[in-house]
Amino acid sequence: MTMNWQRHREEHLARIKAGSAVANGKIVEARDATRLLEAVVRPGDRVCLEGDNQKQADLLSSALLAVDRTKVNNLHMVQSGVVLPSHLDLFDHGIAKRLDYAYSGPQSARIATMLFGGKIELGAVHTYLELFARYFIDLTPNVALIAAVSADRDGNLYTGPNTEDTPTVVEATAFKDGVVVAQVNEIVDRIPRVDIPGDRIDFVVEADKPFFVEPLFTRDPGAITETQILTAMMAIKGIYAPYGVKRLNHGIGFSTAAIELLLPTFADKLGLKGKIASHFALNPHPALIPAIESGWVQQIHSFGSEVGMEDYIRARPDVYFTGADGSLRSNRAFSQVAGLYACDMFIGSTLQIDLDGNSSTITTQRIAGFGGAPNMGSDPRGRRHPSEPWLQAGKEADPDGPAPLRRGRKLVVQIGETFGEKNVPLFVEKLDALALAEKLKLDLAPVMIYGDDVTHIVTEEGIANLLLCRDGREREQAIRGVAGYTDVGRARDKKMVQHLRERGVIRRPEDLGIDLLDVDRNLLAARSIKDLVRWSGGLYSPPSKFRNW
Amino acid sequence: MTMNWQRHREEHLARIKAGSAVANGKIVEARDATRLLEAVVRPGDRVCLEGDNQKQADLLSSALLAVDRTKVNNLHMVQSGVVLPSHLDLFDHGIAKRLDYAYSGPQSARIATMLFGGKIELGAVHTYLELFARYFIDLTPNVALIAAVSADRDGNLYTGPNTEDTPTVVEATAFKDGVVVAQVNEIVDRIPRVDIPGDRIDFVVEADKPFFVEPLFTRDPGAITETQILTAMMAIKGIYAPYGVKRLNHGIGFSTAAIELLLPTFADKLGLKGKIASHFALNPHPALIPAIESGWVQQIHSFGSEVGMEDYIRARPDVYFTGADGSLRSNRAFSQVAGLYACDMFIGSTLQIDLDGNSSTITTQRIAGFGGAPNMGSDPRGRRHPSEPWLQAGKEADPDGPAPLRRGRKLVVQIGETFGEKNVPLFVEKLDALALAEKLKLDLAPVMIYGDDVTHIVTEEGIANLLLCRDGREREQAIRGVAGYTDVGRARDKKMVQHLRERGVIRRPEDLGIDLLDVDRNLLAARSIKDLVRWSGGLYSPPSKFRNW
Repeated sequence: MTMNWQRHREEHLARIKAGSAVANGKIVEARDATRLLEAVVRPGDRVCLEGDNQKQADLLSSALLAVDRTKVNNLHMVQSGVVLPSHLDLFDHGIAKRLDYAYSGPQSARIATMLFGGKIELGAVHTYLELFARYFIDLTPNVALIAAVSADRDGNLYTGPNTEDTPTVVEATAFKDGVVVAQVNEIVDRIPRVDIPGDRIDFVVEADKPFFVEPLFTRDPGAITETQILTAMMAIKGIYAPYGVKRLNHGIGFSTAAIELLLPTFADKLGLKGKIASHFALNPHPALIPAIESGWVQQIHSFGSEVGMEDYIRARPDVYFTGADGSLRSNRAFSQVAGLYACDMFIGSTLQIDLDGNSSTITTQRIAGFGGAPNMGSDPRGRRHPSEPWLQAGKEADPDGPAPLRRGRKLVVQIGETFGEKNVPLFVEKLDALALAEKLKLDLAPVMIYGDDVTHIVTEEGIANLLLCRDGREREQAIRGVAGYTDVGRARDKKMVQHLRERGVIRRPEDLGIDLLDVDRNLLAARSIKDLVRWSGGLYSPPSKFRNW
Repeated sequence: MTMNWQRHREEHLARIKAGSAVANGKIVEARDATRLLEAVVRPGDRVCLEGDNQKQADLLSSALLAVDRTKVNNLHMVQSGVVLPSHLDLFDHGIAKRLDYAYSGPQSARIATMLFGGKIELGAVHTYLELFARYFIDLTPNVALIAAVSADRDGNLYTGPNTEDTPTVVEATAFKDGVVVAQVNEIVDRIPRVDIPGDRIDFVVEADKPFFVEPLFTRDPGAITETQILTAMMAIKGIYAPYGVKRLNHGIGFSTAAIELLLPTFADKLGLKGKIASHFALNPHPALIPAIESGWVQQIHSFGSEVGMEDYIRARPDVYFTGADGSLRSNRAFSQVAGLYACDMFIGSTLQIDLDGNSSTITTQRIAGFGGAPNMGSDPRGRRHPSEPWLQAGKEADPDGPAPLRRGRKLVVQIGETFGEKNVPLFVEKLDALALAEKLKLDLAPVMIYGDDVTHIVTEEGIANLLLCRDGREREQAIRGVAGYTDVGRARDKKMVQHLRERGVIRRPEDLGIDLLDVDRNLLAARSIKDLVRWSGGLYSPPSKFRNW
């Protein structure tokens, strides 16, 4: 029997031939985008419709939605972000059937409804890096529909600062004989730099308007609460300083924005400059501008970019990764790898924490996905290089273990207020994620960060150092001991909590030498978006929704 | 105070200007390579001298060794492979001082001597992915000296099948205003495909001979022992089959080569085709040819290539990742990510295993580094997608845990003979790695895979399933119970081992229905390199050292 080992290649050529009927070379008019997709997408295909944390191939998403569904149907969508309404309309219209994804922030309520209603056949919810991993093993896209800033006539692409997932998606698709279609804001004679070589791109569609990109990492300092300032002070003095954390990732909440804004003020007075927070895997957070301008930050590698930060980044190439053209080069895959293996700390917020320390941002009404937190908020057991913070955390967890055989531990910190938005308690007896798993009959509850990976929980009541807990009961009481007036907090064993405090497992603000009377908005290096613009010397240009002047 | 935020960029431009004095555009003659490096490398620089698992920028290594060391000295080498003698000569000559690396196979004895002698200041030994992670955070190269097959006059590079680390090294260096110098085998008008865009490359040196590349993944089936065949049969019947392992990575030893060669024979008779071993993160192992030809393998993503496999890969694009030019596109970073997060099993061999299941390939005379095994042989706690094998392993480890909150486990299998080469026992009371850590005053003993990540140990005496052990004592006896006539094996508690066997923690060949009389070389689908060539239809072209005809 003679086998055909070139089926993918032959099919690729056939698709390119079909698509070429509506193209001029590689170039396709925007009005022909749907016809192009009808020519190159086949029923049952695995399709990556980019689909990042911020950047969206919105024209191609609309074009796909307009296909004749007798020609294109039963698609298996494999994309990190399910963000646009059209991403879900594809399932409503019977064009797409199955979904593997990582993040669905703005669509989290609708995706929940559609999952409950059986409109979507769920593969799995992943982290970004995990989904990228599967692109190379068993979820390789047959078609990738991506977005870039500009292209030349050979299909070379300039992604600009929001490179994000694009190189990874293209590599997995193009080198496995998949079809790659790019929408670009414009076609030019010469692109500013080559982010993706043209020989990986089959078709280029010139869009009638720039691709959609959302500023997800802008936090208005004016909205930071005094409680958040307090928890930020506690984190700096109780965790950053004693462990000497230099290499780290911050979540996107207001609590970590407060930390960023306290570096050049509160942390500076503590003499911590140069000793903490110098190397980041982080998007270009505007809240970090004062720390950068004050010389705190040596280097930042970014997953994506942030709207309005373009000129600032361009003027600070010593800090950011930029191309010869001057603009940011981000890369989600590499930044996630950096966050996993080269950072000593992940610190972020969550919606619910249970008595084991498991946390989740999922409620029974909203399935937001994971994004990157579970990757960076896990203890990387494959890590083999030591560092002071990592060794110290490992020693606290296992003081009696034989030193050279004792691994370090990554610092994984959950920071939040005991009562969150709308006075909903942060601490719960049972995660909503569990109820969701039962309802959807999932093998696995969508837990963001597991309790055995969490090392510290910071609330306005104190810091619980879970590394120092010796059993499940101590861990439970350490958590209750910082859970404030929530039901979980009030049900604490007071004597045991007192004992944990004496052992330093729980530390109150006063144990850290923080006087509540000192907690003041004036500690923030910037107290408004306008302050951030001022710090940047006018280089930061916030999107209009963040301007009130 | 006005800060200069463009220091790296200005320095980059100054270096390029200095280098341009010996260049014609980007092109530099081989005889001018040392002058080029004297112009673009500065004392104390972090330098990545590529330095992969297989491909070596050997011309640039020799050129660097010839620099005037009053001009270029105190370099901090940050490279995954320390493989060529010249890599270490740099330290002997006082050009390089500090080293962060991942793998040093052929130089493992000399690197040990130089570390003991204080000739090398050791940063840390990493895994590949971990070192790549640090390229983006705190070990970003100032200069990258890389290797490719060909370049055009704009510096666009074709790496050919051995893409390996190159895209990652170039991305970290070029986008942080570092200098990138590529040696290429030839300069051509048009390269077959663009593996690296030219605007990331500063200088191209045309080498007088092709870069050195080593066939590391070729195992002669003729050298496989009957014991290895037995352990391979046990692994297939006792692990691959019951867990249904489809997505996996194999180590490079003879034991896993035996598994590859038993798929179309022994495993086929068991009816396992399509049920196991279909998706790999794996270099193009010649030993897998019979399984591929028999239709077992759906897809392989590769870290690098393998000498002699070029034409075979080119003819099997349905299986391998290839470019439009037809040759393999490998990528170590993505394949390591795939091995970490998308594979359900890692199986490999080691040199020493202790009573806790910790293993190491390091002796007090040889420091071979880690390569990729610790990354793929660790339990990825950031994984969030379920699979049957993963869930089943998780359940075995924690049968009483609440199902939806119970994570799965990666299968991490150590396979070997109780006595290895020169009759050295595989099982030891204390790892040599510990003695080494003491001697070099390392914070961390160089353990390849930690016992708490290992799930199974396979020897000719049996399979120990460590997932089923409930405490350290059970684990120790399970290990002793498959350690044969080594000292560790003979010191077993016979009664407890018997009890563990009754519980299925230990399974002997006969427990798996394997008759030792059936163990036969004829079970191997290929019994020689020549057989592999035959299976490939003459497409596989083994290097001369593997030819005896």
